[in-house]
Amino acid sequence: MSTELLSNFLGGQWQAGRGAGSALFDPVLGHELVRVDATGLDLAAGFEFARTQGGAALRSMTYRERGAMLAAAVKVLQGQRDAYYEIATANSGTVKNDSAVDIDGGIYTLGVYAKMGETLGDRRFLMDGEPARLGKEPLFQSQHVQVPVRGLALFINAFNFPSWGLWEKAGPALLSGVPVIIKPATATAWLTQRMVHDVVQAGVLPPGALSVVCGSSAGLMDALRPFDVVSFTGSADTAQVIRSHSAVAARSVRVNIEADSVNSAWLLPGHAAGSEAFDLLVKEVAREMTQKSGQKCTAIRRVFVPESLYADAAQAIGARLAKTTVGNPRNESVRMGALVSRAQFHAVQEGLAHLKQHAQVLYDGSTQALVDADPAVACCVAPTLLGTRSAAGSDAASVVHETEVFGPVATLVPYRDAAHAAELVRRGEGSLVASLYGSDSQALAQAALELADSHGRVHVISADVAALHTGHGNVMPQSLHGGPGRAGGGEELGGMRALNFYHRRSAVQASTEVLSALG
Amino acid sequence: MSTELLSNFLGGQWQAGRGAGSALFDPVLGHELVRVDATGLDLAAGFEFARTQGGAALRSMTYRERGAMLAAAVKVLQGQRDAYYEIATANSGTVKNDSAVDIDGGIYTLGVYAKMGETLGDRRFLMDGEPARLGKEPLFQSQHVQVPVRGLALFINAFNFPSWGLWEKAGPALLSGVPVIIKPATATAWLTQRMVHDVVQAGVLPPGALSVVCGSSAGLMDALRPFDVVSFTGSADTAQVIRSHSAVAARSVRVNIEADSVNSAWLLPGHAAGSEAFDLLVKEVAREMTQKSGQKCTAIRRVFVPESLYADAAQAIGARLAKTTVGNPRNESVRMGALVSRAQFHAVQEGLAHLKQHAQVLYDGSTQALVDADPAVACCVAPTLLGTRSAAGSDAASVVHETEVFGPVATLVPYRDAAHAAELVRRGEGSLVASLYGSDSQALAQAALELADSHGRVHVISADVAALHTGHGNVMPQSLHGGPGRAGGGEELGGMRALNFYHRRSAVQASTEVLSALG
Repeated sequence: MSTELLSNFLGGQWQAGRGAGSALFDPVLGHELVRVDATGLDLAAGFEFARTQGGAALRSMTYRERGAMLAAAVKVLQGQRDAYYEIATANSGTVKNDSAVDIDGGIYTLGVYAKMGETLGDRRFLMDGEPARLGKEPLFQSQHVQVPVRGLALFINAFNFPSWGLWEKAGPALLSGVPVIIKPATATAWLTQRMVHDVVQAGVLPPGALSVVCGSSAGLMDALRPFDVVSFTGSADTAQVIRSHSAVAARSVRVNIEADSVNSAWLLPGHAAGSEAFDLLVKEVAREMTQKSGQKCTAIRRVFVPESLYADAAQAIGARLAKTTVGNPRNESVRMGALVSRAQFHAVQEGLAHLKQHAQVLYDGSTQALVDADPAVACCVAPTLLGTRSAAGSDAASVVHETEVFGPVATLVPYRDAAHAAELVRRGEGSLVASLYGSDSQALAQAALELADSHGRVHVISADVAALHTGHGNVMPQSLHGGPGRAGGGEELGGMRALNFYHRRSAVQASTEVLSALG
Repeated sequence: MSTELLSNFLGGQWQAGRGAGSALFDPVLGHELVRVDATGLDLAAGFEFARTQGGAALRSMTYRERGAMLAAAVKVLQGQRDAYYEIATANSGTVKNDSAVDIDGGIYTLGVYAKMGETLGDRRFLMDGEPARLGKEPLFQSQHVQVPVRGLALFINAFNFPSWGLWEKAGPALLSGVPVIIKPATATAWLTQRMVHDVVQAGVLPPGALSVVCGSSAGLMDALRPFDVVSFTGSADTAQVIRSHSAVAARSVRVNIEADSVNSAWLLPGHAAGSEAFDLLVKEVAREMTQKSGQKCTAIRRVFVPESLYADAAQAIGARLAKTTVGNPRNESVRMGALVSRAQFHAVQEGLAHLKQHAQVLYDGSTQALVDADPAVACCVAPTLLGTRSAAGSDAASVVHETEVFGPVATLVPYRDAAHAAELVRRGEGSLVASLYGSDSQALAQAALELADSHGRVHVISADVAALHTGHGNVMPQSLHGGPGRAGGGEELGGMRALNFYHRRSAVQASTEVLSALG
């Protein structure tokens, strides 16, 4: 018996693909769950429906009205949380706490943008700064405005956040008045499709405001027009294909990329083993390595400690990792579930083997048996801590600074002094986030500024915020998400800053009287 | 006797290319002026010198110090204005007023960024917004900062503004603390090279802060690293090559594109022939068509008038154009000089022939003889006004909305009503600027908002600012320069906004104490 073929929602209609479809699997139990397919969809017509029907309806609303619309979507989603947790367990293989990061994190982020609509109020465009005189006379001035782009927002998303990845983008887009088409990664498309289904069926959005296409991404980029925008989360290789596509390269479709990065945690010099700063680093590294089995773009991949603390740090992190039981997320004793797919399982094994050629194994969790899971079937990978042995080894191990293994894997990288550490961190060539651990506020602030140009976010953990800080890898809607270079160069979230991508800035040069009439 | 081979300045040294070079010509008299060549330059070493020496020196200075440095550069340039005007006459074939737009416009813009250094003061990075709480406790917050990118800024520039095009980009880059490498278009590289020469020789910039490479652009993009930025002004075809280059597509080099666009002037409905609004449109169109022989990315290419005013507008614009004497800029009776090169001369003839197949000729200046110039040698083109005959013709003439002839050529486009006009304007698929003419402030403000999403700038000319407004095509540093879609999607200038491109935004999440220590 074949599984259910999930429908796409495009052009204001639920439409099944005409092909056999691609199957989605349970990564722990191994069986097929549902299928997705986009064969035969009229993408051009569907995209045009979003632009004309969805765009016009959204732009006719004020920010306050669109905020209220998002608040209504939040209510719909909150009402179906149990169903989403079930899908996450089955399709992502995640334990409850890890599913929460995706599901509740997504709903929370959408809620933040719902509230922002209140703040922005009864307007249909935004003023950008104050009027500037264009001469000695104050009668002729320049006033910048931000108006919603008159196109659609296409999201091509990653498999690790089927909920959060949708809503952290759709919140700012819909609040800005821009219709959304979401193309989830096939492996975990089910949760995305279900959430869109629930919001669409609840009728809280105007027709054309939100569409979902599941399956192949073939033809999506071809259907873009000059005023559309595209936001991609995923590998650097696919990012290159998107940026080289004629929609972007020739038609100036605006693009935002969030790609892999080799994020860092850095214990500043001058802290002994067992100090508060040391312990905070150890705790955060172990948590980041294992949350969602390390399948977060923001997870810690490189751990920088003074050379003298290499052995102590290895021992302490290893001891924490040893407490991480791995296996079937349905068993309550399990702390870490599976990777999302066989493909990811093999990619992680391969990446780990590659890293091992250049680093020593400091902790290997694979000696522990899986709980309630068949190792021949389940895509479960135990945590592994590697290390570069010495400061000289840290310099030599280029692979460690360049390779992101998208699983519960990190490498301990000893350094000589602060300058050496900063130089090594920067060999990641641009990351989403670095976290700093220390006790001297001046030194922490200086290190944060030192890393700011190569990181979208610097997360500083000092003892006074040990119980308050929001986590190295946790993306808060108030802060920028994205990073330069290898991390893709994009900017998402950051509170109001997220709206920039969905607006077009324009300078209106006019008489004082005309500028006053802008409203 | 061969002409002088201009040197490149790279890696802190003046270096001649090893090839025979490309010749630059006088477009009016036809003779060779100088040659440029970049063969054999060690670009990788020169770029690294700029990054390490130039970047470090600039970043060690405060905004105030960098502003003072730019003010010193302004003084150097002002001291050599006569030499620059001579080069412009010889190499660009422009009359004095047109040379001023480039030379004095460039120096003025640089001066605006010099003064901004004062405003920004004794800091080395910028705060971006206020701290935002990341929970109920105010102890852990997110503060966004803007820090200078740790790379270089490569400018690949167009032939029409060898001075302004350099300084409108270099001002914001150097003020931000980012070293500059300028690659001017070969046809008019002389003025750029001379200005860089004068500023470098005056010793007002640290070594590596400003470099110039003249000649072929081969290899320049290959030499870029992930934290560099590239700003290109020129054709959509070359823009596509740049965006598809692996530096951009794979290494996330930040790119700003300012490409051709088919800019509009729009007389709103409800104004009779001979009204103030009508006359202001006629005057501005004739000025924009002929200034710099129409070789401005911002020049008016399409002129929208109510269908009933088609004949009157054609007659009035034609009458103004008839007063434009064309020829040798050294003759004081000449109002309009030459195009910059034979290549441009042929491109304009070709584009004009193409447009003529879809539009009627309303005014043809080529019946007047050139003044003091040999029509077989001089790259002089007389102004031509075309028209689409009727509102239906405006709909049918796709070529008119898509074709930019980079010379003194515009097309009169009659429309039925305001909605029709807005729709026709938008068929340019994104432009740098549109200008509006009318007497009703409400209607002007509404039309400005209607066009804001597809234009980087909307310039509104009403009777009260007839003597004050800064001109449709004149780019003021206070206002954004750039436009969506076909115009390339970039953002230059706009006062402080210009600094964004040369800074990297980062969110520092930390305790209140650490955030206070950021300084």
